[in-house]
This record gives sequence, C-alpha cells and structure tokens, in this order.
Amino acid sequence: MHTWDGAAVRSRHLLAWHERSNQDWERMVLDTVAEYQGKKQRAAERRGSIGLVFLNPSLRTLTSMEAAAVRLNMHPTTIIPGQGTWSFEWRDGVVMNADRAEHIREAVGVLSRYFRMLGVRSFASGTDYAADRDETRFRTILDAATVPVISLESAFYHPCQALADAGMLHHRFKGATAGRKFVLAWAYHPKALPMAVPNSALLMATRMGMNVTVARPEGFSLDPGIMERARMYASGHGQSVTETTSLGTAAKDAEVIYAKSWGAPLRYRDPEAEAQLRERHKQWRITEPLMAHTSRGVLMHCLPVRRNVVIDDAVMDGPQAVHLLQAEFRLHAQVAILARALG
Amino acid sequence: MHTWDGAAVRSRHLLAWHERSNQDWERMVLDTVAEYQGKKQRAAERRGSIGLVFLNPSLRTLTSMEAAAVRLNMHPTTIIPGQGTWSFEWRDGVVMNADRAEHIREAVGVLSRYFRMLGVRSFASGTDYAADRDETRFRTILDAATVPVISLESAFYHPCQALADAGMLHHRFKGATAGRKFVLAWAYHPKALPMAVPNSALLMATRMGMNVTVARPEGFSLDPGIMERARMYASGHGQSVTETTSLGTAAKDAEVIYAKSWGAPLRYRDPEAEAQLRERHKQWRITEPLMAHTSRGVLMHCLPVRRNVVIDDAVMDGPQAVHLLQAEFRLHAQVAILARALG
Amino acid sequence: MHTWDGAAVRSRHLLAWHERSNQDWERMVLDTVAEYQGKKQRAAERRGSIGLVFLNPSLRTLTSMEAAAVRLNMHPTTIIPGQGTWSFEWRDGVVMNADRAEHIREAVGVLSRYFRMLGVRSFASGTDYAADRDETRFRTILDAATVPVISLESAFYHPCQALADAGMLHHRFKGATAGRKFVLAWAYHPKALPMAVPNSALLMATRMGMNVTVARPEGFSLDPGIMERARMYASGHGQSVTETTSLGTAAKDAEVIYAKSWGAPLRYRDPEAEAQLRERHKQWRITEPLMAHTSRGVLMHCLPVRRNVVIDDAVMDGPQAVHLLQAEFRLHAQVAILARALG
Repeated sequence: MHTWDGAAVRSRHLLAWHERSNQDWERMVLDTVAEYQGKKQRAAERRGSIGLVFLNPSLRTLTSMEAAAVRLNMHPTTIIPGQGTWSFEWRDGVVMNADRAEHIREAVGVLSRYFRMLGVRSFASGTDYAADRDETRFRTILDAATVPVISLESAFYHPCQALADAGMLHHRFKGATAGRKFVLAWAYHPKALPMAVPNSALLMATRMGMNVTVARPEGFSLDPGIMERARMYASGHGQSVTETTSLGTAAKDAEVIYAKSWGAPLRYRDPEAEAQLRERHKQWRITEPLMAHTSRGVLMHCLPVRRNVVIDDAVMDGPQAVHLLQAEFRLHAQVAILARALG
Repeated sequence: MHTWDGAAVRSRHLLAWHERSNQDWERMVLDTVAEYQGKKQRAAERRGSIGLVFLNPSLRTLTSMEAAAVRLNMHPTTIIPGQGTWSFEWRDGVVMNADRAEHIREAVGVLSRYFRMLGVRSFASGTDYAADRDETRFRTILDAATVPVISLESAFYHPCQALADAGMLHHRFKGATAGRKFVLAWAYHPKALPMAVPNSALLMATRMGMNVTVARPEGFSLDPGIMERARMYASGHGQSVTETTSLGTAAKDAEVIYAKSWGAPLRYRDPEAEAQLRERHKQWRITEPLMAHTSRGVLMHCLPVRRNVVIDDAVMDGPQAVHLLQAEFRLHAQVAILARALG
Repeated sequence: MHTWDGAAVRSRHLLAWHERSNQDWERMVLDTVAEYQGKKQRAAERRGSIGLVFLNPSLRTLTSMEAAAVRLNMHPTTIIPGQGTWSFEWRDGVVMNADRAEHIREAVGVLSRYFRMLGVRSFASGTDYAADRDETRFRTILDAATVPVISLESAFYHPCQALADAGMLHHRFKGATAGRKFVLAWAYHPKALPMAVPNSALLMATRMGMNVTVARPEGFSLDPGIMERARMYASGHGQSVTETTSLGTAAKDAEVIYAKSWGAPLRYRDPEAEAQLRERHKQWRITEPLMAHTSRGVLMHCLPVRRNVVIDDAVMDGPQAVHLLQAEFRLHAQVAILARALG
C-alpha cells in the first residue's frame, strides 16, 4: 500500500520532541514560523477550508453545505460540539466552574484563524423570547468572528433556506413571482418548532412581490416586527399581507402553499399551555382536498416533514409537491452564498 | 491569517437577508437560478461528492470508502444519522407522530440531489427474517434514490467485502482459485451477528470456482436460497458445496479458512433459545492446532474480530493470517466499484 | 441535478453481486487486483489521505489538523471511536468476550493500509502513573502502525502544541528567546487535568533557552523525569529551572506567563484527597494585578480555558493575552509537521 519501510516509518512517528535532535527541533521551529510568515502570500493560491459548526442537528444543511463548498473547491470541516468536542459557554462575565469547558468567544476566535469562513447553526432557545428575537447568541458569534460567518439557521432566520426558496420560485415562475398568491400555512406538529423558517419564508415571499396570506390558528401569530417588515416589503411591490385563521379560505386560488409548523409565542411563557393549545389543531394538515382548492398550486416544505401529520402521503407523493426540487435549491443557493462571501 | 479587514468581514456575515439591499438580494436570487441552470453543463467538469450514510457503526468501511473516494478525486461526506442528524422512519403510510422526524424516502431523495452517488450501511433487523432476506429496507432506499447507491453492508449482503475478498484470493493464488478448498468456518461470538458477510463470502468463493465447505454447528445453517445459489455457482465450475458440523474435518487440506460468526436462524423466533444454543459452541474457535491441519491455508476474517474468542492470538499474529491484506483490499475493491459506478 | 436517467441509475446500484453477470463480476475482480498492483506506482501522483483518530474530545486539534492537511492538499478523514465506530481493546493477550469489539492492533494495522499517515489523540488514563509516564498506550499504537503516526496529545506529551508555542515565541521575540523569563503557572481547575501540556511547555521553553520558573502549589510537582530533562535542556543554554510555590514571586519580571492547570500526582493514588488538595488553591488564578507584576509579559494558554476560574476576563480580553495567536500557530506548526512526515 505504502512505500514506507519500517525504519522510515519509525523516524517519522511523532510522540514527543525530546526524541528528536536539537537540529531537527530548531529546523521545525523555523519551518513553523516560515509557514506563519508565508500565509498571506499563499492565501490566494490555495483552496480554502470552511468550518461548519452544528450546535443543532442537520441532514440537508450539513450535506448541502459540504457539497456546495466542494463545488467551489473548498474543503468543509464539519464540527458537532458535544460530539467529539467540548460544550460551549455563551454568557459573558460568568465564572466557568460548571460543565462548560470553553467560551464561545474563544471557540469562534480560534476557528476564525483556521478557516476562510464559518457556517454556524444555532437554533432558538425557545425560552427567552427577547434573546431569540434579538439573535443574542448569533450576534455573539458574529462579534467574536474575524472571518465571514454564514448562518445555517439561527433563532429567527434561515437565510440559506430563504434564498433557496426564492431561487426555486423564480425558476418555477420564470421570474414572474410578483402578485402570485403565496400561502404560509401553519400545520400541526407534536413539538413546538422554532420560527426561523416561517419568518424567513414570509420575508422572502413578500420581498419577491408575492401576494401573501399567513394562515394559522388563533394564538400562533408571528413576531410583530417580522410581520411589520413583511408588510413593508409587500407594500413596496403594491402587495399586502393577509392573516387568517381559516386554512381552507387561504388555500383558494393559491399558487404556492408553503406548509410549516411553529410553536405559539405562548411557549415562551407557559410551554404546557402552548402544548395544549397546539393539540387542539391537529386538523391543520395539508390534504389532497385542500390542495384541490388551490390554483394548481405547488406545495413547498423545508423538510424534515412528518408524513400524515403535517402533510398527507397523497400530497407528498402527488404532482403538486416540489419539496425535493426545493431541497435541491439549497445547494444552488449556498454555492451562490459561498461564492459571494469569498468575494 | 486571513486578509479580511473588519469591515470586509462584517459585510460578508450572513444572518438574515433583510440586512442586505434589494439589489443584493435580487442578484443573489439570479445567481442561485444560474447555478441551478448551469449544473448540467458543469457536472462533468467538477469533481463530485459521494454521500456515505452509516445507519450502523463502522471503522474499516467508513475510512476505506473515504480513502477510495479521495483516490478518485471525489469528496466524501459521511453522515451518521442520530449523531447530528435526525432519525428516519422507514414504513410507508405511517402517521409520523412519534420520535422519527424524517422519512427515509425524503432523506434519500434529498441526498440524491446533492451527491453523484451514495453509499449506505443498513444492517439486518435481526427480528424480521423475511424482511431481512428480501432486503426490504435497502430496496426502499434504492427505490427512493435517483443516483447510484452502493451497499456498505445490508441485511443479507456485503458486496464491498465480497469483491475485496475475491480480489485478495485472485492475487494470492495468481488467478488460479478454481478447485482450491475454501472453508467458511463458523465461530463462537457472544452476540448473534448478522449473515451478510457469510452469505457474501459463500457466494464469492463458489463464484470464484473454489471447492467450498461450510462448517457450522447444528442449527446454524445459512438461508436456503443463499445455499442454493452457492451450489449453482459451484456446479458452474464443476465444484460442489459441502456442509459439515465438524470444524476439524473441514479444516483438513483447506487452503483458505474464512472464519466468521453468525447467529442461528432461531434468533428470529426465539432469541433466548438461540443464545443458549450458541453458548454451547464456545469451542468453535480458530486455534493454532486447527490451522496446522490445513494445507498451509490462509486465515481470513473480515474484522472486527474478538481475539481469543473467535481466533486465538497465536493465529492472528502468525504467518497464516492475512486479515490485514484482506482489509487493504477493501480499499482497492471500492476504488474499482466507485470507478465503475461513475461510468 | 445529475445526468443519470432511471435505467442508468438502476444499473449502477450495488446491493449484491449475484445481480450482476459473471462477466461483470470477473472484470470487477480484475479491476480490484489491478488497483492493488498499481498502487505503488501511483502513490506519488495522488494526493494522500490522513486518518485522524480522536479517542478524546477536541476542537482546536481536530479543526487545525483538518485545515493543515488541506493546506498540504491531503484529505483528512476524522474518526471518533464510539461515535459511529467500535470501541477498542488495548490489552494484549486478553479474551475479548466483553464489550470491546476490536483490538487497537487491528484498528491501527488496518488504518495504516488506508492512509499515508495517522494522527491519534489518546489522553492519560489518570489511574496508572507508570503506564501514562511510559506512554504504554501510545507506544502500542506506534508499534502496530506501518505509516507515520503524529501524536495529537498523548498521556505525557503534546508535541503539536509544543511546536506551535515555540514557533509563536520565536516569532514574538524575533528569534531571541534565550534568557527571557518564562513562567509555567499552575492554575486552579475543577478537574484534575492531565500533564501533557505542562510537560510539553516546560520542555519547549527550556529547549528554547528560556529562563524557566515553574510556579505551583505544594504537591503539584511535575514528573521527576520531565523536570530532569528540562534542567538538562536549560543547562545546555546556560539557564536553569526554578520551582516556587509563590505565583506572585514567579510573575515578577516575567516575559511569558504560560497558565495551565494539572492534577497533582496524588490523583493516581487517592483521587478524593487530590480533589481536596486542589480545592484549597482556588486563588491560583491569573488576574490583572498579577499580570501587572510581569515585564509587560504575554499570557499564553493552550485552550480551552475556563474564564474567571483559570484566567480572569480582564486578562483574557486585555492586551497581554496572546492565546488566539498561539492557537493560530497550531495550524502553522502542524503544516510543518505534516510536511516533514510526508518527507
């Protein structure tokens, strides 16, 4: 397999420097310094690396970001803290005498030294609304980073998903997205999911000039600031944002049904009450009859999706579902994002 | 380290699109669509990626597949579901209201969009014999995939191991494998292991024209369909397949001892009874005296192996053991498999 | 996304070889053997792979090693045993009938067949002093390997850290490290940490000709063999190694404070007594007043660091801290190490 002989191998093992001569040690120190000094000149020549930090689980994002990086000839290093790495402290000024061995500031500062850019996934806390809305955690990361950081979904936003969705809609409607009816359709889910995707989908659709309806049960309104921004985007295109508690009414004449579950804001104050509220809305499910009310509309979902809970098999496997093309656009959007960040 | 200054870095962070101008947003949408439209033309130019999905643990397969992919200038992305990704639902038509967040059909459909090909490891259930024999799970994956899928060991087969073993034997015997005595030797193991490797080894050896003996205790016969296919292969070379419950008899004049443990079919109906049956056969172990009965035969094992339970140290560390060369052939076989699948 | 049509995909799936013709099977066997036979000729042409085995957690080492490998155009495959792989048996001669499915000898032997070199992290046991001091585990790995093995921290040494630190100091002091006061400063930590970093830092600083003081509480002396070697290095430069139990005295006029916690040797005999002893020294912490006593000294730490336990925020965020540059030098040192090992 390899051309090493035994002596050559043994001479190349590295356990400790005291097994090497002074001459060898000194040359290695000089090599290290030369590597440091040469780094700027050679930066442009070499293919770079991107560090992908997943503080929450992922399938699509992890794999599509690796694939996107490879397409740009970058090497992706994926890091899943707590699995083979330390867990992080986020709070400033704290005495770190408990179980968290490293502060996020050091972690991000160090990773900034190794990679040309970073991707970071850090979901909403689900317990501190103001911190989630203000992106306190993600802004700590941005603050500590000295290379560009791409969000792989934060508390309130999922920009890779948003651009993928926009690209797919632009492609689907041959650039003519303006004025088409887009329904952001809340769906039941056994867990109180975060709002990053619905927030991003709403902002995306209004910015694409679509005529947007948010259909969701009483108590499941999105953040007022997000709604206000969406209305601003819509009015810029002469459109508006409608809210309704009737999914059936919303679906009528829709050209896009964007199905997504999210937890009610009540979860931040009283998770049990929110769960009880949510359990009363199991009928909020994307069915074939509902899709029949649309104007041959497409069904989008960011995935993962629970079949027959969020969307029925008949819809998932039918001609209106475009979730796999939508997932594919993640790759294309991320290539565009990474290419832009490379400058 | 990097040439970014602070303003350049901040302008490249991506938290949410509302922090970017309309012009920037619109250009990014067009870049995304262009990336999608250009994909076919550029597919041939770029080095591809392979997604490796390990639903069960691996050391050799994971590392040798990554190394094989790199040798062909592909980038391997390794995914271990449940470690940083969601767990999968396999059953069709089910209401997904429990702990499994994503259906394997979506997962495989999505991965097909990101990678030029996939490798998947999915072991036998050990509880549903018909499903294991019929490869129900793996066929679900094949059905959902739109790119080639290479098995990294399924319920009943391990084709990478089979080709590696065949290549090693062809090399070892300079192409003259026909007629040589090959013994598939059952060995005791504290767990009821799956049958993918013994099935594949039996089919491989008979297809290489070897004179095959299966030595295993009463009750540990392999699947009748596998045995029948093995006899068919053997007869095509004018050979036969012998079964015996005496390991000592089998070893006599053998040129290859292929040691492997597997659970008795009884495990599917009564795991406790199978465990009791298995515990009575701890003497089924590859020892130095046993190897001395062979015709200077080589000892093969697919690894991992429990020393002094399956094979004695004296054999593992002796001149007849070829398990490391066998493991090396995994790499060569997989390069051949990937190159062929690339077309 | 891909140019496969359905039939082309299905013909490329690989579930089992009996689904392929004899002609196809035989050609694949020959391709495998050709791949084996060609390996030596092509070894020089292809970019190699490095296998990185982390038997203990890592953030900096994992990411900087991947980045260093990529910089040398090698592909890094990172393996975290127990997460998607088997756990290893280390003892020789043991009957492997418990939970460990693979011996480290086979694991390392196999990995040697797939990679041009290996990196391995294997921390101190913390329970067997002689084994830790003698690097029993790491030497088992070196013994089983047939390619170069780079330590990513073993029981007593961390050579990548040592070279990085040396390179940074050489850079910082423009090559003139000799005679400058370097203080290895013990600090309190809630856990009894291993001695690999302090051992390596001490040997590094003395070998760089620095005037070294080890400041640590009574009972926290380093290994006598390490101290002896450090004194030998120091005397070769006309320097000496001083030990003190007063951190304040040590800091006076220091040009480098190298903060690091480690467990007292007592931990090997009586962990509870060691913990009690350690808890009495919480005041061993790097503070701003302490740093003010130095000769505008720099503060080094290998990271991860517990803020306000080991080092105060004011120091971490102040002008004397160079821990991020130090971390960056990990990358440069490892590029130098890998380049040398490649030969």
